Amino acid sequence: MNRILSSSPKGRMVSTWKMSLEGLKKGSRLLQEGKPVHEAILCAVREVEDNENYVSVGYGGLPNREGQVELDAAYMDGDTLGCGAVMAVKDVKNPIETAYKLSLKNRSCILAGEGAERYAERNGAKRQNMLTENSRNRYLREKDQGAEKATARAYEGHDTVCVIGRQGTHLACGVSTSGLYMKEPGRVGDSPLIGSGFYADSQAGAAAATGAGEDIMKGCLSFAIVEKMREGMEVQKACELCLEQHVKRLEKRGYQDGGMSVIAMDPDGNAGAATTLEEFPFVVAGEDSCQVLIASRNRETGKQVLFSPDEEWLKNSRAD
Amino acid sequence: MNRILSSSPKGRMVSTWKMSLEGLKKGSRLLQEGKPVHEAILCAVREVEDNENYVSVGYGGLPNREGQVELDAAYMDGDTLGCGAVMAVKDVKNPIETAYKLSLKNRSCILAGEGAERYAERNGAKRQNMLTENSRNRYLREKDQGAEKATARAYEGHDTVCVIGRQGTHLACGVSTSGLYMKEPGRVGDSPLIGSGFYADSQAGAAAATGAGEDIMKGCLSFAIVEKMREGMEVQKACELCLEQHVKRLEKRGYQDGGMSVIAMDPDGNAGAATTLEEFPFVVAGEDSCQVLIASRNRETGKQVLFSPDEEWLKNSRAD
Repeated sequence: MNRILSSSPKGRMVSTWKMSLEGLKKGSRLLQEGKPVHEAILCAVREVEDNENYVSVGYGGLPNREGQVELDAAYMDGDTLGCGAVMAVKDVKNPIETAYKLSLKNRSCILAGEGAERYAERNGAKRQNMLTENSRNRYLREKDQGAEKATARAYEGHDTVCVIGRQGTHLACGVSTSGLYMKEPGRVGDSPLIGSGFYADSQAGAAAATGAGEDIMKGCLSFAIVEKMREGMEVQKACELCLEQHVKRLEKRGYQDGGMSVIAMDPDGNAGAATTLEEFPFVVAGEDSCQVLIASRNRETGKQVLFSPDEEWLKNSRAD
Repeated sequence: MNRILSSSPKGRMVSTWKMSLEGLKKGSRLLQEGKPVHEAILCAVREVEDNENYVSVGYGGLPNREGQVELDAAYMDGDTLGCGAVMAVKDVKNPIETAYKLSLKNRSCILAGEGAERYAERNGAKRQNMLTENSRNRYLREKDQGAEKATARAYEGHDTVCVIGRQGTHLACGVSTSGLYMKEPGRVGDSPLIGSGFYADSQAGAAAATGAGEDIMKGCLSFAIVEKMREGMEVQKACELCLEQHVKRLEKRGYQDGGMSVIAMDPDGNAGAATTLEEFPFVVAGEDSCQVLIASRNRETGKQVLFSPDEEWLKNSRAD
């Protein structure tokens, strides 16, 4: 039976979507071995980037409307506030690694397009065509049906992988995505934008977002959540309040919700999540456990709950 | 004599650096004629973009370390929260216009690199080499002296042009820059990042930032200032508090201040500014006035003052 959580789950890592489960298991094992937080985060994100079945991240990502896979990734260190990102890069394997390397620099930490690709290559990234046969076929099929003229759209069931990790008092986060399917070439979503797609400050907390990037960025959701934690708000409350206020502001302006979900962690390792979806799976890894939890928004009341799904749910869910 | 201001100057527009004076005069004239706020902002920003003497914005901007001018620009509408930006675009005249057009879209509003250039061209932007003879010569001279290996650096005396405008209750802002001189190709600073370089919400206020982008973005300074105004804080206080808190957080982490300045406006037209520089000129245009003011930080006490400079100061100042 699905069990509703009565308090924030505690953990060392938290990540978006069920697809991050295997990566989070591996990442949290590294933390248990005493490895630094960036190693755990990079390991977890890479696992999703490398899995071609996840069509919204890395290898196997669905392409833009011209049939090319363009990737965004970012990394932020909560101790130094160092932040690195790559935007709209083609043919770069594991963009999270270049984002991490950039986060160690003082200047020119965020790179876009061709400049980012060349930097990545000079700094050890493998150049590789990220379009798989499957993604190419799906693109060609939908293109033939005229879908390339359709509005770019968010994924169903999964989207950006966001991973927040904590080693001792050290918080950090990493995100990686191929962005909207059928997007405009060069399109940058919220994921690599500091404050919108991610934010980490070891003194206050860390947060990250997934979903319709253009909606998320209008409220700088990740930074807003961290600021509420800085003021002393409990992590789950901060996620719910910031998302709810933002949804109201968007609704007042006549926007239709494109789907937004957030995860967060406070400096003590308490994790939170909130969503505008009926079911948003996320993963929490603790000292010696790693489990999928669900954030769910009641359509009528708008109330959020977190629950621990049963085997049956996990088997039947279409959400990755 | 320089006259210290005892209250926030009131106005319809506020912009960064003395170089924006002529543009702001033209823009505020449009507002007086009842034109919508975006026309005034675009007019003001274009004026700076087109002036080749301002080497940090648009035509005549100083190039990246490979000798190419790469431009960033963004626009945000405080009524709709619509936001558009172009990043690292080459050979595009008046990038602010493409940023504005993108802010009217629901998806794919932020475009980087080559995709952004093609979008700009398809939507009426003129393709033009933005490198002037002067900027090219300065680059070649410094390159010969080995400066291309030096760290990318912020400008002295001027930098990103940021313009906030208000027509009735409608707030909006636009920013445009060529980014750090000698930057890494593809480098994106704070300017086109929502929440860091700019933010506008007609219900709360608008803010924008100029200076060392990698420092500014670590604190999402523009969004932070607007959120303080939303909570009821007076605009000048919000600018000073957010900048001061952020500087302290950076100092704790051992960063040397690379120079940061902010401007803001509340929904009633009260303007504020704060800086880590000794002298940061900004411009306020009211109903029938347009004047350069100076924000100044006392090096020893850290206290900020705003003053109205005399003719002598304006004549001798190296700050544009």
